Amino acid sequence: MKRITIYDVAKEADVSLATVSRVINDSNVVREDTKQRVQEAIEKLGYKPNAIAQGLALSKTTTVSIVMSEKLFAYNGKILNGLMDVAKIYNYNIMFHTTSQGISKMQDVIESIIKSHVDGVILFNDNFSEDEMEVLQEYQIPMVVVGSLLPETKVNNVGNVYVDFEKMAYEMVNELFDKGINDISLVEDKLNLSMMEQMRSGIERAFHDHGTEFKKYISYDETYKSSYNFLTEYFKTNKPSQFVFTFRDSQAIAVLNSCQEAGYKIPDDCQLVCVLNNKYLSMTRPNISTFNIPEYDMGAVSMRLLTKMLVDDESVRENKSIELGYSFIPKGTTK
Amino acid sequence: MKRITIYDVAKEADVSLATVSRVINDSNVVREDTKQRVQEAIEKLGYKPNAIAQGLALSKTTTVSIVMSEKLFAYNGKILNGLMDVAKIYNYNIMFHTTSQGISKMQDVIESIIKSHVDGVILFNDNFSEDEMEVLQEYQIPMVVVGSLLPETKVNNVGNVYVDFEKMAYEMVNELFDKGINDISLVEDKLNLSMMEQMRSGIERAFHDHGTEFKKYISYDETYKSSYNFLTEYFKTNKPSQFVFTFRDSQAIAVLNSCQEAGYKIPDDCQLVCVLNNKYLSMTRPNISTFNIPEYDMGAVSMRLLTKMLVDDESVRENKSIELGYSFIPKGTTK
Repeated sequence: MKRITIYDVAKEADVSLATVSRVINDSNVVREDTKQRVQEAIEKLGYKPNAIAQGLALSKTTTVSIVMSEKLFAYNGKILNGLMDVAKIYNYNIMFHTTSQGISKMQDVIESIIKSHVDGVILFNDNFSEDEMEVLQEYQIPMVVVGSLLPETKVNNVGNVYVDFEKMAYEMVNELFDKGINDISLVEDKLNLSMMEQMRSGIERAFHDHGTEFKKYISYDETYKSSYNFLTEYFKTNKPSQFVFTFRDSQAIAVLNSCQEAGYKIPDDCQLVCVLNNKYLSMTRPNISTFNIPEYDMGAVSMRLLTKMLVDDESVRENKSIELGYSFIPKGTTK
Repeated sequence: MKRITIYDVAKEADVSLATVSRVINDSNVVREDTKQRVQEAIEKLGYKPNAIAQGLALSKTTTVSIVMSEKLFAYNGKILNGLMDVAKIYNYNIMFHTTSQGISKMQDVIESIIKSHVDGVILFNDNFSEDEMEVLQEYQIPMVVVGSLLPETKVNNVGNVYVDFEKMAYEMVNELFDKGINDISLVEDKLNLSMMEQMRSGIERAFHDHGTEFKKYISYDETYKSSYNFLTEYFKTNKPSQFVFTFRDSQAIAVLNSCQEAGYKIPDDCQLVCVLNNKYLSMTRPNISTFNIPEYDMGAVSMRLLTKMLVDDESVRENKSIELGYSFIPKGTTK
């Protein structure tokens, strides 16, 4: 049966929501005949206005904290959508915590999580150290970490929803070697250091398997403008690598623009891949090759996992680690 | 005096955060000598571990709800940063509510706000109808609306932090008329309808002042791909307008790409402005002209306004409406 709401009452009585609300709250400003019409609608539909006000008293509300870096709103939008959609299904309240760089801020976040008496926490990788996660664990707050694979550490009671970036990089570099391509660069993304670390090991493993060593882990300032300027200067005297991995759209576009403006052809002189996919990669010329990483699913699965952890569901007692797949999306910047 | 935290204790005792936490929680897994070292550090520094656990009992925590559309994470990132930074200064807890299209979801959001007993609410324009805002008002929850100017309505007790998009559009179109440009289009942004409405009235007013009528309010599907496809088809048989206003980056880039690929020169054959500025407008060729809208400030000022409303500060009793400025940033798509 459909739950009767204040909207239904307003419709039935042909008055505004505000008027219904006023009647419920016994305000004097409503005309007597309107008040009566609303009360008749309430009675007819069986609307229970008090349920709202008594909400907290009647049933314990589950509250979950989401902790993410301020800088990642734009990139984690789809993950957040997944998290929020599942949270809505379970009627959870969401407390929102943002982190900035610097340990002092992080400690405030931990304290405010603990103070808020939340039932569970969703963390994004790279925002917390293992040490800090352990503190949360001491307070026995169920936690799910979204992003990359957690290392096998003492932090073994934590949920983890991840994509295997190590394998992704390893497989792709193996294919590149098979095609005779071995001049490969990886551009660091300072916002996603644990994912970078995993991609780097994957590339290093592939190089090692081919009896050589990976050396082109490139790090420069993270904004589009500064990396574009750096690369423009760099390409005056240097050739681009045969193949460049970037993590975020703005890094890929910086490579694309600077490389093309230096007279190099993409993908002929330099192939380019951007790991995180979004719409901007289809707005460049050529379109930028990328991976299909199930970001919405990462959010949705994480929140679902947390709901199971909160009721100590048998299915998650042993294994709280869920790997999600990925696939390569070739576009105009690869051959 | 600096507040002593668990971090200071860990540093002083030269142990991990987790160890300090274990000692505080009287866990048995800590070695006796380590436990003693931590207890000495706690005593020496005067750390009060119980303050955390007793947080809620000791002092009422202020909790503020932020309500925004799921689709706008990527665009409202800077506004969120401003909101969160000021919320941190005041030690507020943030409850996070997202809205999707459709009235039934909105009603759930209202109910969950009311149930959460939050102290105040920050809303983004276009996410709530006036009617719905009135319901929140009936529950006497202080509210600040961020975005565009609220119409003078019954909703007069609401804070409002806004940019005057009507004036912005009016002034710019007046200047265009002065330069002899009168073939002007405005591309609708379905995600920001109240801002669009205001820009449209500004343009209409300017046209009216020049004895003519504005007719090119263009509406098509909102994704980059579909608008790019639409425009590519359109430019096969039609010329672009002399001047095009778009609201979001992806709309501007759709116009730029389709127009250039149809053989038109930007800005010579068609000038283009994107109202909301972000980094992607500097990644296109040419760079896209835009406005400097103080998004971070909009968030920070809104939260600050709410803090004043929560203590019924005298300065906000009469006027809760704050206008923020803007400026034009000419780049390569305008002359």
